[in-house]
This record gives sequence, C-alpha cells and structure tokens, in this order.
Amino acid sequence: LRKPASFARRAAGLPSTFPPAHVPAELRAEIIPFDSGFAFPQLLPDLTCFADDALGAHRAQALQYGIGQGHPELRAWIADYMNRDGCRLSGANILIVNGAKGGLDLICRLLIDEGDAVVVGAPMYFTAIPIFRTFGVEFVTVNQDADGIEVGELRHTLQQRAQQGLPPPKFIYDVVDFHNPSGVTATAQRRSELVDLAREWNIFLIEDNPYRRVRFRGESLPTLKSLDADGDLVFHVGTFSKLIAPGLRLGWIAAHESLIARLIRLKSDGGCSPFMQQVVLGFCQSPHFTTHVRKVQDTYREHRDRMLAAVKRELPGVQVAIPEGGYYLWLTLPANVNSDVLASRAEEVAVHIIPGSRFFPSEDETTLARARRYVRLSYSFATLDQIDEGLKRLGPIYRSLASG
Amino acid sequence: LRKPASFARRAAGLPSTFPPAHVPAELRAEIIPFDSGFAFPQLLPDLTCFADDALGAHRAQALQYGIGQGHPELRAWIADYMNRDGCRLSGANILIVNGAKGGLDLICRLLIDEGDAVVVGAPMYFTAIPIFRTFGVEFVTVNQDADGIEVGELRHTLQQRAQQGLPPPKFIYDVVDFHNPSGVTATAQRRSELVDLAREWNIFLIEDNPYRRVRFRGESLPTLKSLDADGDLVFHVGTFSKLIAPGLRLGWIAAHESLIARLIRLKSDGGCSPFMQQVVLGFCQSPHFTTHVRKVQDTYREHRDRMLAAVKRELPGVQVAIPEGGYYLWLTLPANVNSDVLASRAEEVAVHIIPGSRFFPSEDETTLARARRYVRLSYSFATLDQIDEGLKRLGPIYRSLASG
Repeated sequence: LRKPASFARRAAGLPSTFPPAHVPAELRAEIIPFDSGFAFPQLLPDLTCFADDALGAHRAQALQYGIGQGHPELRAWIADYMNRDGCRLSGANILIVNGAKGGLDLICRLLIDEGDAVVVGAPMYFTAIPIFRTFGVEFVTVNQDADGIEVGELRHTLQQRAQQGLPPPKFIYDVVDFHNPSGVTATAQRRSELVDLAREWNIFLIEDNPYRRVRFRGESLPTLKSLDADGDLVFHVGTFSKLIAPGLRLGWIAAHESLIARLIRLKSDGGCSPFMQQVVLGFCQSPHFTTHVRKVQDTYREHRDRMLAAVKRELPGVQVAIPEGGYYLWLTLPANVNSDVLASRAEEVAVHIIPGSRFFPSEDETTLARARRYVRLSYSFATLDQIDEGLKRLGPIYRSLASG
Repeated sequence: LRKPASFARRAAGLPSTFPPAHVPAELRAEIIPFDSGFAFPQLLPDLTCFADDALGAHRAQALQYGIGQGHPELRAWIADYMNRDGCRLSGANILIVNGAKGGLDLICRLLIDEGDAVVVGAPMYFTAIPIFRTFGVEFVTVNQDADGIEVGELRHTLQQRAQQGLPPPKFIYDVVDFHNPSGVTATAQRRSELVDLAREWNIFLIEDNPYRRVRFRGESLPTLKSLDADGDLVFHVGTFSKLIAPGLRLGWIAAHESLIARLIRLKSDGGCSPFMQQVVLGFCQSPHFTTHVRKVQDTYREHRDRMLAAVKRELPGVQVAIPEGGYYLWLTLPANVNSDVLASRAEEVAVHIIPGSRFFPSEDETTLARARRYVRLSYSFATLDQIDEGLKRLGPIYRSLASG
C-alpha cells in the first residue's frame, strides 16, 4: 500500500503516552479527578426547551444544511457579546467552529507551512501542543511571570532570530485570562506591550480565551482583540464549552473579515450543525445565560477556595498563586520534589494529577528539570468532598518526598 | 503583517464564483431549487424525544467532553449496520466525523502532500473538488460509463504514469451508488475490478457513499468496503445527512484500525458533539429508523418519477438515464445546446440548475466542451408541483436553444 507518507512528519512528536480517552462514567468511584478539565456535572444546564424549540419551530432550518460561516443570528450575538467587552466586531468577523480546538486547528491550516516557527508560552495549554505539532511547527518558547508572557524576553528572541536570518514566527499563541495551566492573568500593561510587539514585528496573535467569564473577582482586563486597533492582527478563539457545556463542541474565531473569508474556504465540513447553533442561540438569548454564568463563577470560586485551603493544609512548602478565575491551581514544589514522581505515586492512591512536564513543548533536560517543579490541579470536576479527600491522600506522599 | 503564505497555494483554483451560502428561508417563493441537495423538508424527522432523552437521562455524558473517536455505542451501531451490508467491522474501525465532507478533509490531511496525484471520476461530486484542491492535489481524471468508473482506462493511465516515472496516485475517489451527479450505480463486476486494481497498484480507495440507502428498487450491490478483503485498502465515508438529516453534521469513516488511530490524532477538535451523537444513536436504535428510511425511499422515488416524466414531456431530445436511487437526474443535452447558457437563461425564470462544467475538475477546453453537454437536476428539495412548474419554465428556453 501507498503508505501515508506525510503522517510520520505530521504526527512526529505526538506523545506516545497520550492520556487515554475517557468519559465520566468510566471513572471508578474512588478516583479523584484533579487532572480533568471537565465541567462540574451540576453545572451542565437544562437545554431541553432550547432543543425542543430548535427541533420544533426551527426544524426546517435546524435540520437542513446551514451556512458554512455559521448561523447569522448566533454570529451577531457573539459579535455583540464581544463588543460589550470592548471589541468592534460584526457577524462578518465571526466564524463558528467545532470548539476552540477546531478553531486552533483551522488557523494553523491557514497560516502554517511545515517548519514555520510559532511563539508559545512556557508553560502552555497542553492540548495545543499536539495540534500545532501536526502542522510541523518549530516551537519558540517564551517564559511567563506573574504578569503574563515576558514580552521583553520575546522581543529579544525575535531580534536574535532576525540577526540569525531566521524568518519571523507565524503567530504568537497565548491565554491571557486565567492561563491554563499557570492561572496567571496578564496585566493590562503586558497585554498592550504584547499587541504592540506583534504589530511592530507583523506577527499574528492567537488569543485563546476559554475562561474569560469564569472570573471570581475584580474587573476584566482588555482582551487582545479589543486592543487590535486595525482588527487584522488578532485571531480571538472563543468557546461555549465553559459558558454552557463542553459537549456542544461549539466555539468561534473572531478575526478580520478578509481572514475569516479565507478560513471559511478551508473549513471544508459544510459548517457546524445548525441544530446545535440554534440550541446555543436560544440559551444565549434567554435570561438563563446570565444567571448560568453567575452560577458558574460562584461554583468554581467555591471549588478554588476549597482547594487552596486544602493545599495549604496538606502540602506545606508548596507555592501557589491565587488564580482570579479559570479551572486550575498551578503548584510550585520544593526543589527536592519531582512532580513526575509525585504524579506517579498519586496514581497509586487513585488521585489523578498532571505533572508540569506535560505543559512544556520542549523536551531538553533544562526544561524538563524546571517542569518537574510544577503540578497542575484542576478543581472544576471534583466535588468539594473530593477536593478535601484528594489532598488528604496526596499529603503523606508529598511530605515523604519533601522530607526524603 | 506576515501574510498567510501558504494560502495562495492552498486555495489555488477555488472557483471565485463559488455558489453563495443560502438557507431555505432565503429562497424567494418563486425560485425552483433544482440545484439543491437539501433534504425534502417534510422528511426532516421529529427528533425531539431523542434530544430530550440525550439532555435528560444522558446529560452527564452528552454535555461533557466525549471520546475523540466517537460514542462507543454509536460506533458499534454503525459497524453492525455496515456488517449487515457485507462488511466485517467493529467499533474500532469507525471514526465519527463532522459530516462526510469533514471525513474527506481528514483523510486528505492523513494522505496528501502537496503535489500528490489523486484519481477522481469525470464527472465528480463537485464539493470534493475544492476540498481536494486545498491540499494542493493533482487531479487524475478517469471517465465513467453506465457501469461506473472505467477501470480499464484507469489501468492504462496508471501504467502510463509509471512509465513516465511518476509516483502512483495517493487514492482513488469514487461514489459507486447513485453517483452524484451522474446517477450511475457501478456494476458488481466494475466494483470488483476497481478494488482489484487498487490492490494491485497499492492505492487507497475512498468510497464516498451518502446515498446507499436511498435506493428505489432492486438489491444493493457490494460496497467497496465489503470487497476490501484485508480491510486496509478502503476508507468508506458514510453520513447521517441522508439517513436522518443534514443539519446533524455527523458522518463516519470506516477503515482499518491502524488508519483510524492515525486519523484520530489528526482530528484535533476534541471529537464530535456527544450530545449530537446521543440524539443520532437514540433515533438509530428506535423503530423510527427503519420506517424513516422507507419513507425517504418512497418520497424520493416519487420525486424522481415525477421529474423523469416532466423531463420527457418538456425537454425533447434530452437523454437521461434512470437512476436507481439518490437525489439527481443527469441530463445529456443535444450537441447544439450549451448547458452554461441554459443554466444562465434558467436563472432568468428563477429556476436554479447546475451546468455540467461544475462537475469536472479540469478546465481545459476539451473537458469544458464535453461538460457543456450536461446538466444536473436535483429532485430532492423541490415539491412535486415545483418539479412540474420548473420543467414547464425550462421547456421553452431549452427548445429555443435546441432549435437555434
């Protein structure tokens, strides 16, 4: 057989130990899922009446082929939603995609030729690593501090690359609100600097912003998209996974109309389901949307607080910044505790955690040594009791490693 | 800005006059949509109870992240459905995708490097043309007769390419049941010959088979997948668009487990919606599925017969083969009638038809001259009255061109 010759390249570097697919029902009762970005089950809303409406009054549209770019009313709703958040968009700037991941994949198809460099943070959202790798990218990493991605370091890196005659990276990828995994929210100044740098160097920005409304306190800072004065620099990737439910698999890209036109041509799947889009539109236009978002904020705030308290109680010597939103705590372990070992030992007591090494695209020894200081704990899917119980099980393991 | 350098290549050859996106509600009442592959509206089933069940009893799974490969029960149902049709598959051989188009796109991502040759029929399913083009393929066309794709001609072409030192094509793409647009159903012998040829030359086959159950008479012939003795030659692409409704945007790829494993890694969107899959599973497992498929067959048979009669009545001198299933009539016009002109004049009387030139990937003058003899008429979306009325409007235009 003519083998898929390109596959070896495209899949190069995909981790062989990719986590097995699982659904909640497959998790044994004793497992504490601190690895999971699943939604808290009690937050999955009742969408029955919106589905009934879509399949009843809207059936002739919802079950027929739709428009590739997405439902016009839903795109208008998203544009308005983002405009209330400082943007200047219309429905023409929006493309409905198969979740944020589908959006990232599509943007790569537009922008990336094999061997192109892309800028990512270290650490970074781990699911984006294999997506970007399937396009054969070179990762250019930039560190993150408590204020966000280190723009000064990035400027220096870009200058060095230019001096070496290397082409500029195709895009800079970042999560500025409640970063996954670090929990960091970039400061307003850092956001401005990042957009200015990208503009100066003519490099696209991909703003992946799934958690923006999962904010526990304080005011939102400007999105990168809202700082994109000419509108042609930033691809904003949004999703309904955290606003409504992950199982919808619906997200969006907000970008310049000319770029959206190109993305539409590469989105060959006939468009996202008009039925699903009608369900989402119904929910978004209803009063449930606002009350649901508040419930999401209140629930995850309570989960975060419970987990912070348990970490302080059970893991003395661990550093943890308090995230203002999102799903995750990012722990820095004492120098003598290896997070790969901690995660492996945690498995033995049925606590699933993700060691820092999963969040760095490089695999050189310096990076790995640094990565082993970190652990990501998710508080989204576990119950409050599971949060207490999970850290109670982690405590003795951690303390034996820390004192070893 | 760093322009998307690869786009020019990827979108090269996309027709600038791509048909505008539309939904049924946008069609003015006087328009007769013989261009449309939409489902007949009265055939869009009531899925309310299945949606309610998915969002009620199954909510914790349906609205959560799912398994990338697809819902295990739905994959098992599809494997069983195909096994009753002569295949030997399990759920491990199935990947749920975003409609058949999403499946074709994904297979191209696995197999195609820019410049690779692929074999397609002439004419061919026109939506596949831009999908394949975005991957930078070279089209190798092979003619079709009343028995299907001309395997003898294809063998000759492959030999010629080999003599010229050209690499073999990466795949052969065909629609063997009720071909779109030609309506041809490949004979059993032609199917065997095609699979044998592909095996002999070690070339993958993509069997795109959306209409298989939309059969009006007689027994089904073996799918290419059922003839794939070792199971590693044929990618079968199926869809629920014609079995249930296009708006679901759900289809599947059936292929060797090792190829499915590779496709899963390239399907970066987090999997298709588990909610949507649960709705489809509920419908497929219910008694509605069988009665609905029968209703689909009965309805489109009646539409086909009505259109055949109207064509004979209104378009004397036009040749038309009687399709045993599917959505389309493929007309061969007298030599002096140009289908591009006919389609353009038909627009003036609000009848939408698609000229043959849209169904050929080559644009050389010989091909175009041949293509101008053909017209595709769809009978799926129009009512019986619209079928009569549309051909009544086409009649005088056609006759004036034929006698001109």
